Amino acid sequence: MQADILIENGWILTMDPENTVFEKGSLAITGESISAIGRAEDLSHIRAREKVDAGGCIVLPGLVNVHTHASMTLFRGLADDLPLMRWLEDHIFPAEARLTPELVRLGAELACLEMMASGTTTFCDMYLFENSVAEAADAAGMRAVVGEVLYDFPSPCYGPIEKGFLHVEEMADRWKDHPRITIALKPHSPYLCAPELLCRAFDMAEAHNLPFVIHLAETAAETETIKKRYGRSPLAHLADLGVLSKRTLAAHCVKMDEADIALFATKGSAVAHNPQSNMKLASGIAPVPAFLKAGITVGLGTDGAASNNDLNILSEMRSAALLHKVNMEDPTVLDARTILRMATIDGAKCLGLDGITGSLERGKQADVILMDTGKPHMTPLHNPFSQVVYAAGRNDIRDIFVAGKGIYRNRCHTTLDANDICHRVREAVAGFHKKV
Amino acid sequence: MQADILIENGWILTMDPENTVFEKGSLAITGESISAIGRAEDLSHIRAREKVDAGGCIVLPGLVNVHTHASMTLFRGLADDLPLMRWLEDHIFPAEARLTPELVRLGAELACLEMMASGTTTFCDMYLFENSVAEAADAAGMRAVVGEVLYDFPSPCYGPIEKGFLHVEEMADRWKDHPRITIALKPHSPYLCAPELLCRAFDMAEAHNLPFVIHLAETAAETETIKKRYGRSPLAHLADLGVLSKRTLAAHCVKMDEADIALFATKGSAVAHNPQSNMKLASGIAPVPAFLKAGITVGLGTDGAASNNDLNILSEMRSAALLHKVNMEDPTVLDARTILRMATIDGAKCLGLDGITGSLERGKQADVILMDTGKPHMTPLHNPFSQVVYAAGRNDIRDIFVAGKGIYRNRCHTTLDANDICHRVREAVAGFHKKV
Ligand SMILES: [Zn+2]
Ligand SMILES: [Zn+2]
Repeated sequence: MQADILIENGWILTMDPENTVFEKGSLAITGESISAIGRAEDLSHIRAREKVDAGGCIVLPGLVNVHTHASMTLFRGLADDLPLMRWLEDHIFPAEARLTPELVRLGAELACLEMMASGTTTFCDMYLFENSVAEAADAAGMRAVVGEVLYDFPSPCYGPIEKGFLHVEEMADRWKDHPRITIALKPHSPYLCAPELLCRAFDMAEAHNLPFVIHLAETAAETETIKKRYGRSPLAHLADLGVLSKRTLAAHCVKMDEADIALFATKGSAVAHNPQSNMKLASGIAPVPAFLKAGITVGLGTDGAASNNDLNILSEMRSAALLHKVNMEDPTVLDARTILRMATIDGAKCLGLDGITGSLERGKQADVILMDTGKPHMTPLHNPFSQVVYAAGRNDIRDIFVAGKGIYRNRCHTTLDANDICHRVREAVAGFHKKV
Repeated sequence: MQADILIENGWILTMDPENTVFEKGSLAITGESISAIGRAEDLSHIRAREKVDAGGCIVLPGLVNVHTHASMTLFRGLADDLPLMRWLEDHIFPAEARLTPELVRLGAELACLEMMASGTTTFCDMYLFENSVAEAADAAGMRAVVGEVLYDFPSPCYGPIEKGFLHVEEMADRWKDHPRITIALKPHSPYLCAPELLCRAFDMAEAHNLPFVIHLAETAAETETIKKRYGRSPLAHLADLGVLSKRTLAAHCVKMDEADIALFATKGSAVAHNPQSNMKLASGIAPVPAFLKAGITVGLGTDGAASNNDLNILSEMRSAALLHKVNMEDPTVLDARTILRMATIDGAKCLGLDGITGSLERGKQADVILMDTGKPHMTPLHNPFSQVVYAAGRNDIRDIFVAGKGIYRNRCHTTLDANDICHRVREAVAGFHKKV
């Protein structure tokens, strides 16, 4: 058998339905796909154009960041430790008013660099000028689900909402044949979107068979607003409008009670859990163990870099594991395997991409990361799941392949020019502090 | 003026009492000490044997890890996500029964490598065979406060407690003139140490003018045990015995009520806060904002790598900031400056070392770290405090000086052989999984 790339002798965590592990395993890539995976000795007959020595490495599916606003990297550290409304109104909104398609593209490229360097191969993004984010992801060689944010007031990108739907149609058309970019419908939230907007966006998602992504139940203030406005919880409001289905991904879901959770579970919708953002903004703790118990699929997101302040799913995994253990007063909650599933296959499931990414299985897209275990903080290696979740850092990621292409090799970016992008970002934001 | 080393053009966060910042600053080292610090233009006349370009770097005091069990790196990932007693009794205690002075030395060297590579210059350690830890810290060139753990039952190191005190006397004598190693009295906890042991240890600390370090109020079970045994809270019990003073550092302090906090504050004792360990073991959330409000000094610790699973104060800073914001439902709690003080000058204060380390001031020991801000996840740099606490990772640490000596330069260890130590650790623990 002939392959393009053979990754040899790694400790492979496939994240397949049986959580299969090959302690000394190999993985062959042919074209965009995984053509073989198994014990190294069983794959030693495979000839390949390139052999990658994964000795001393953990081999994983690429990580999935199910909720971010990539271009907010531009505002990293611009304002922190402030009350939510002051942070938004005095700092974030004025900064966002300065955005252009070019700035969004630049911020998204910076975000892609950072996400790649911490093992993320797929991300789900909602923002302004989202075509620019799709372009950045395309240039980076990453996989992305992108959608222009829709809300009741005029957008700097498309103007009035009527044109917003037109804009989304155009985006869907522009990217429909792209192998790595998926367009999604992304109304901001139940509090910034009228029922008509939500229903129309959901109908469009149905018509084009696209994901439907929305912020939901992030804060106590939101719950209060929605209850006052519609007489029910944010979750019940969406259920009532008929916009919860298997194609729905709801970000945050911090303020959900038992009834909300039970109702949500019947819809087959998924949750994007953003532990660090929820902690930093003091929004609260999403009832993730209860979601899992109810059979709800939960993926991990970073949210934007203004409320995090990085886009690192490795560190999000650890925060999720630790937060829910202490919150439930139970150290067995969200064990390392469960957490790693959230960051890989369950994240892919949230985005409707579990048929093509999120686990290492023959026939799936070759979205693969190699994690070096040679550094002192990764030594000794008693348990690879524990090591990934509780010890690894971004610099342990050595190589990344997406759709069979090496987009990060030996800790160097091969698709984007990191120095140039960082330099241009510094120039672009130099005036942000003074002028906002 | 002539210096040995001149660190030039960095963004210096001095962490001095006024939180002085030099956006373009320089720092001169002569011998072991900081001989000048200020604006780069004001120090440009200084000639130096070596000039270090800190352009694009944040310059900080070395980080202080106020609570760890360094050699537990050997057990990293050995057992996770288990109920506390099963974790201890089925995994940690059997593994610890295999320890020898040589293994403790090896584990401590591994820990030193890891701590240095994440910016820690000073650590406070409690364990078995602690002379070995002191030797490792000495070889690493780090600053350390070390103490043999004392408890009621026989120790693998010294045998019966009577010999334990003798052993501590010998340790204190052996290391008393060492410029970077301080011996401390370290009774394990109120539940493993009888009142006589605690009082005698405290008296010895007084007689030799040494720190007194103890685990305190870590879990609900401990509080219950102590209340049953002595009729009061663990904190009140120690106060009653007279072992709380300015020389006392209490690790954890998770289960402290208002009365405990008020009493503790009157004693001038300090707290070692270990957010990740407390979260992972589901012990609870220490009332840190209340400690600070009461004027109690709080430092940050990692605890051992078996309950963390790394020894990274950068990540501990972020966990502390995020945890207390969400717990207090207030995003302004523990802002980045406060957190960075906990990891530097306040940590030094916890150990009685604030006269010599923990801030960058003329005359203090030159314990200095340089953090590179060039990577995408550190770009742009709007606020250096936010960047250090909310975005930086271990690999951003580029250079470390302790007492004026470069112990980590351009991300390479200069004092210990990382590859050799990692290799020996892997060999040494190869059988741990099967035999325990
Ligand atoms: Zn969001
Ligand atoms: Zn401890």
